[in-house]
Amino acid sequence: MAEVSLYSKEDLFRFTTQLLQKIGCPESEADQAANVLVSADLRGVDSHGVARLSGYVRLHEKGRLNARPQIKTVHETPSTAVVDGDLGLGLVVGPHAMDLAISKAKEVGSGWVSVKNSNHYGIAGYHAMKALEHNCIGISLTNASPLVSPTFSKERLLGTNPISIAIPTKDQPPFVLDMATTTAANGKLEVLQRKREDAPEGWLQDKEGNITTDAKGLINGGSMRPLGGDREHGSHKGYALGAVVDILSAVLSGANYGPWVPPFVAFIEPNPNPVGEGLGHFFGAMRIDAFREADEFKSHMDNWIERFRASETVEGEEKVLIPGDPEREMEEQRSKEGIPLLLPVVEELVQMGEKFGVTLEKSLN
Amino acid sequence: MAEVSLYSKEDLFRFTTQLLQKIGCPESEADQAANVLVSADLRGVDSHGVARLSGYVRLHEKGRLNARPQIKTVHETPSTAVVDGDLGLGLVVGPHAMDLAISKAKEVGSGWVSVKNSNHYGIAGYHAMKALEHNCIGISLTNASPLVSPTFSKERLLGTNPISIAIPTKDQPPFVLDMATTTAANGKLEVLQRKREDAPEGWLQDKEGNITTDAKGLINGGSMRPLGGDREHGSHKGYALGAVVDILSAVLSGANYGPWVPPFVAFIEPNPNPVGEGLGHFFGAMRIDAFREADEFKSHMDNWIERFRASETVEGEEKVLIPGDPEREMEEQRSKEGIPLLLPVVEELVQMGEKFGVTLEKSLN
Repeated sequence: MAEVSLYSKEDLFRFTTQLLQKIGCPESEADQAANVLVSADLRGVDSHGVARLSGYVRLHEKGRLNARPQIKTVHETPSTAVVDGDLGLGLVVGPHAMDLAISKAKEVGSGWVSVKNSNHYGIAGYHAMKALEHNCIGISLTNASPLVSPTFSKERLLGTNPISIAIPTKDQPPFVLDMATTTAANGKLEVLQRKREDAPEGWLQDKEGNITTDAKGLINGGSMRPLGGDREHGSHKGYALGAVVDILSAVLSGANYGPWVPPFVAFIEPNPNPVGEGLGHFFGAMRIDAFREADEFKSHMDNWIERFRASETVEGEEKVLIPGDPEREMEEQRSKEGIPLLLPVVEELVQMGEKFGVTLEKSLN
Repeated sequence: MAEVSLYSKEDLFRFTTQLLQKIGCPESEADQAANVLVSADLRGVDSHGVARLSGYVRLHEKGRLNARPQIKTVHETPSTAVVDGDLGLGLVVGPHAMDLAISKAKEVGSGWVSVKNSNHYGIAGYHAMKALEHNCIGISLTNASPLVSPTFSKERLLGTNPISIAIPTKDQPPFVLDMATTTAANGKLEVLQRKREDAPEGWLQDKEGNITTDAKGLINGGSMRPLGGDREHGSHKGYALGAVVDILSAVLSGANYGPWVPPFVAFIEPNPNPVGEGLGHFFGAMRIDAFREADEFKSHMDNWIERFRASETVEGEEKVLIPGDPEREMEEQRSKEGIPLLLPVVEELVQMGEKFGVTLEKSLN
């Protein structure tokens, strides 16, 4: 494995919020954004944590990200809304829109907010999990830069378009699904690339659309495959799920969809003929007691989880996991032991810090 | 292929509604149920069409299905409700609950209805598609008899728990996702069993939890695998999606969930210690113009579909499909040419008809 250096979550939070304030973000919004990024690092989704900070900064430098957005609700009904993110950080626009969904759920049982004119919002799970403390089921979807080919296509038409759904529990930890609609998340590919290992069949195709195990396939003009990998194994289902995420996030709000979604990387220019504004998200919140007494629901959730956790396993496997288990265990570990950053990531952060006069302090050895 | 006999949709509708009236269903409900079943046959989901009629009748004979249910809304808010199906046909309870979701969407922008104490509701897509004519996005989920093992488990803890999402369009046909959360639907397995062919790896595991290609694996104590097939190919995602369907359908409504879901086949007794009532569904409707002007949305949906349909294909593949294409093409064909029923299915229907004094008429040659 590549060499790493350990940072506490406070180290990374402080650096991130200071840096975002330097590019013009108000303090409270910089704090919010730093929270989302560090949450990804804590939960082990390294590809969506502070390693992405420089990407946001470069988008800002290109004028493709607004550090002081006027986020507005442009249309609403008692249970729905469309929010215009004013080209702000998705890390800020997302929590704003999720809060609106939750407040609507408090009023009329459920709230659904589609967002346009936003940017990358970090990990989907952060936003869905905001609902938990309000005794709501939380839902969070986003579209993303095109990297994925629909079944039978050789073009990149969809992002990894994740789905997160967070469900409250009583004594058990919450149920948190957070998944890309591709066979494997992009972060897993990056790990293989660093290790110079092959990718399993079904993750990638080359630029002709043929299955490849070359983990660099994506760099060489190929694309990611939808969950399922090939038609025989249900890739049309992964494609359809990714499509629904795209439509709810962008066609419903007026953002760019499919191949028109602006690239996250600043060195690729967005499509000069956009079909909407920025990229899109979709958030939902349903109040548990809008259906059933909350305590009763949560007791049954505990029972559900305990039954599945107690399931008899296939030989060689230790236990059946509940969605959210791996990320939560990682969060517990990293909160105590620190967050390992790859040395090239540290180097990039330090350089960026020097440019803006912010020091990456390190409280751990 | 096994021999088939062709029936018109009117032949099958008439037989089904008459037979359901014989077991006590009111005429309007028998008509509704017949519509759902024949719709499955038309759309090519033969496993969920009139071939299942005898299964419903046997459940009724066992006292596990109520032909004259008093369907009740037991809890509600402006945008949510829980419906008690009074152990009625899911084919009747489902449309009732979906109508409630649509009427709530008309009032407050969206409607979400979780259902308990129901039975098998046919194809998920029928219910989601009801939303289309109301300019709503429709969502339909249901849990089902346990046949699926979570990743790493060798127990059957989940049903094939389908997801359907129907989205309105302008000139293009609607976008209709309708998928089991398993690698392959049970109906596809039945086809392989009849042809005495093997199943692809990733569809099934044997009773020890090892991958098997024996299409009879399910009959021999094995189980179906979640979408993804194995961990490396994302089966934990298919498992998590199936889990969410189970939770929204049953933990939220008070129905049975997971391994407690009552079996569809009458010869297997339900768990003597249920955790809820009957099985559960979940329906949603979102009014398009609760987000954005409906015509604008639909024009962009057409643009989305046209762009994806025009995508450059992998060599050897004719076109990129839009979710709903195969079922719609099948429906057009079978509406004209008739619905092919396997001879054993015809035989069973005829025998059942004789028992209840209903004739299966055949208007096609």
